[in-house]
Amino acid sequence: MEDLFSLLRIDSQSAKGKGAEAAKFLVDYMKNKGIEAEEIRHKSVNPYVVGELNVGAAKTLLIYNHYDIQPVEPLERWETDPLTPTIKEGKVIARGVADDKGALMARLESVISLYKEGKLKVNLKFLYEGEEEIGSPYMASFLTDNAKRLKANYVLWEGAGKGPNGAPQIVLGVKGLIYVEIRTETPKDLHSMYAPVARNPVWELLNFLNELRGEDGKVKIPGFYDDVVVPPSVEGLYASKLGIDMKTVERALGYRVGDDFLVKLVRDPTCNIDGIQAGYVGEGSKTVIPSSAFVKIDFRLVPRQRAKDLLAKLREMVDRKGFKMMVLGEVEPFRTCEDSEISKALIESAKETYFVEPLVLPNSPGTGPMASVSNMLGIRQIADGVGPDNPESNIHSFNEFIYKRDYDLCKEWMTNFLRRLGSQA
Amino acid sequence: MEDLFSLLRIDSQSAKGKGAEAAKFLVDYMKNKGIEAEEIRHKSVNPYVVGELNVGAAKTLLIYNHYDIQPVEPLERWETDPLTPTIKEGKVIARGVADDKGALMARLESVISLYKEGKLKVNLKFLYEGEEEIGSPYMASFLTDNAKRLKANYVLWEGAGKGPNGAPQIVLGVKGLIYVEIRTETPKDLHSMYAPVARNPVWELLNFLNELRGEDGKVKIPGFYDDVVVPPSVEGLYASKLGIDMKTVERALGYRVGDDFLVKLVRDPTCNIDGIQAGYVGEGSKTVIPSSAFVKIDFRLVPRQRAKDLLAKLREMVDRKGFKMMVLGEVEPFRTCEDSEISKALIESAKETYFVEPLVLPNSPGTGPMASVSNMLGIRQIADGVGPDNPESNIHSFNEFIYKRDYDLCKEWMTNFLRRLGSQA
Repeated sequence: MEDLFSLLRIDSQSAKGKGAEAAKFLVDYMKNKGIEAEEIRHKSVNPYVVGELNVGAAKTLLIYNHYDIQPVEPLERWETDPLTPTIKEGKVIARGVADDKGALMARLESVISLYKEGKLKVNLKFLYEGEEEIGSPYMASFLTDNAKRLKANYVLWEGAGKGPNGAPQIVLGVKGLIYVEIRTETPKDLHSMYAPVARNPVWELLNFLNELRGEDGKVKIPGFYDDVVVPPSVEGLYASKLGIDMKTVERALGYRVGDDFLVKLVRDPTCNIDGIQAGYVGEGSKTVIPSSAFVKIDFRLVPRQRAKDLLAKLREMVDRKGFKMMVLGEVEPFRTCEDSEISKALIESAKETYFVEPLVLPNSPGTGPMASVSNMLGIRQIADGVGPDNPESNIHSFNEFIYKRDYDLCKEWMTNFLRRLGSQA
Repeated sequence: MEDLFSLLRIDSQSAKGKGAEAAKFLVDYMKNKGIEAEEIRHKSVNPYVVGELNVGAAKTLLIYNHYDIQPVEPLERWETDPLTPTIKEGKVIARGVADDKGALMARLESVISLYKEGKLKVNLKFLYEGEEEIGSPYMASFLTDNAKRLKANYVLWEGAGKGPNGAPQIVLGVKGLIYVEIRTETPKDLHSMYAPVARNPVWELLNFLNELRGEDGKVKIPGFYDDVVVPPSVEGLYASKLGIDMKTVERALGYRVGDDFLVKLVRDPTCNIDGIQAGYVGEGSKTVIPSSAFVKIDFRLVPRQRAKDLLAKLREMVDRKGFKMMVLGEVEPFRTCEDSEISKALIESAKETYFVEPLVLPNSPGTGPMASVSNMLGIRQIADGVGPDNPESNIHSFNEFIYKRDYDLCKEWMTNFLRRLGSQA
């Protein structure tokens, strides 16, 4: 694991402008192993690392990872130095080992081994980003400008690791997102004795939110559910069927949820209030009719809902009220079908490596830019898998770790995956 | 106006612990004029000034005023020094001249004149408070301890001045108030991808608020309107009937309201949101399910709603949801009938003084402790009137003023009022 440790020692906290050293390390490392590689400075501070290994195969796989890491703070909560990778009780502890340097290096090491042995039957392209942890601000523009160069048949996402049942996890899509801030105002704060005749922006906003979502959680934007596709495979996601320990889930959420929690997480689009504020919120009482109120809302969308269309419908509702709306996020959902070549290769190689049924999620409960990658590069088969992390890896938190054994298995999974993909292609 | 000016020059900003000097001034002044008076230190920092003038009449009037003033800041917005009373274009400009030193001194000067002339036909008691502007924290306890001493047949409240139609205003009651903070919590913040299965305290609170008040503004606490009494005289309060200039009202609120605004202000109980907060309210977006949400609400109540009963019903609703509720205010509404002796004396003396129909409000749109004064002292006839201020007097703001002419009229009104009350009694 010497190469992984070298990468983990490099500070690449993108939030602090760090990363250039890691990019250089990767380019040198890849070149050294016979892979074409270069840094491309786009608009970003940290360069994109782009690589290619053409073995003359019919099909090409683009491997996406990121070399930047979350900030290491709070330092006092770490049991070891976050930038000094440490092996302890079978764990490798370091910032970034689970997200995402472990997956990056495990995959790369497998590729190099297969290549050396002459067993690589699929062409490879590599895209390593250095600003994922600060929201990939220039990714879309980079992809647009470099679409030709990154052209491929498949994309392997950053690494899904193990699922809540301990089985290797394969994720075939992402949810979409609409994030908006809605605001309403009156000319000035008023003494609350005027309540019988005054407009109260908070009540106006609350009445609107009540029109937006029912008490049952159902979203009331017209046609919201029209295009929802429920994949039959969600029926396999009941916790009892998968042997998921509900106590782990209870610990994560803080309370007990139903046997169908994973079904719902994958299947259901939502409308969530992220924040709301108006009026007097200090100690004690102030009798006031606030002059403004705002709410931040996110909608998670499932395939084949269309963020763009629903946002337009939402804007109509907001406009009718005379409120103001600011769009803070718009991501389309995406799903690759379960019997695509990349899906089958991921599933079969997982079984071969771990001797268990992998946990296959038709889409993540979370959001990512798969749809825009798909559109910009013209690639339909995008999936996530082949990572060394587990649900308790403390991603984005202190004492981030992976099990050493999972790193070795991840390399094996990658080898098996590439072999299967090459034989299918 | 020399005596008023002396009082205005004394700094009695109770929020800054000032007031003792004004109390001493008043006691000396009253004694000097033959009125029994003394300072009583209760739990308060500023003493209560209590006085008595017994002329052997059958009935007794208790006159309530306060000698403390609001803070003078922001000083840079004043055109004159707030503690140096200044006469300019027919105005007397000084902090406290409208709220409440003007009414206090005008009334006292009238009393002294009548007394000197031997024309006082009603016994008088005086209660001057020094902490009204900081919420009268010890008033209830003071009244309880001094109930016997303050016993009277009538109470004249601090001074209602002129109404929105320019006529002298008489206010025969106050609204009640319930002020609560309601809060709900979950164990921790969660990533919003958990929205399909997670509890969101904001939605829970919003659904509750929706149960509490309809979109039409009607309060849905069971039995909320059962005890509401609508006095027939509110039918006289349409702005067009009273000749109220709606542009003045529009300036005050910031937008146009209906001809019935004063009817509603007097008649309707309300449920107002004073403040609400939950989750992420900073710049940009954060996808989070907040772990707590709270709202501050005030209910304004009209006679004969009972704050105590409605609060109990509200608590039942809150308890059923498992939310927490903190009570921050509880004031019962109060109303003296229009044909009581004090009401008639106020109305007739206003006509006699101003040659116009006074504006008689069955109750103020605002709240005050009339009900507890009534209960503690066993007095049913409490009313407000006889003040020198007008709707644009800048009470609690900079450049506070009264018209000099209104001060003289206020004294005349007081004289006429006392004469009428004495002849009725």
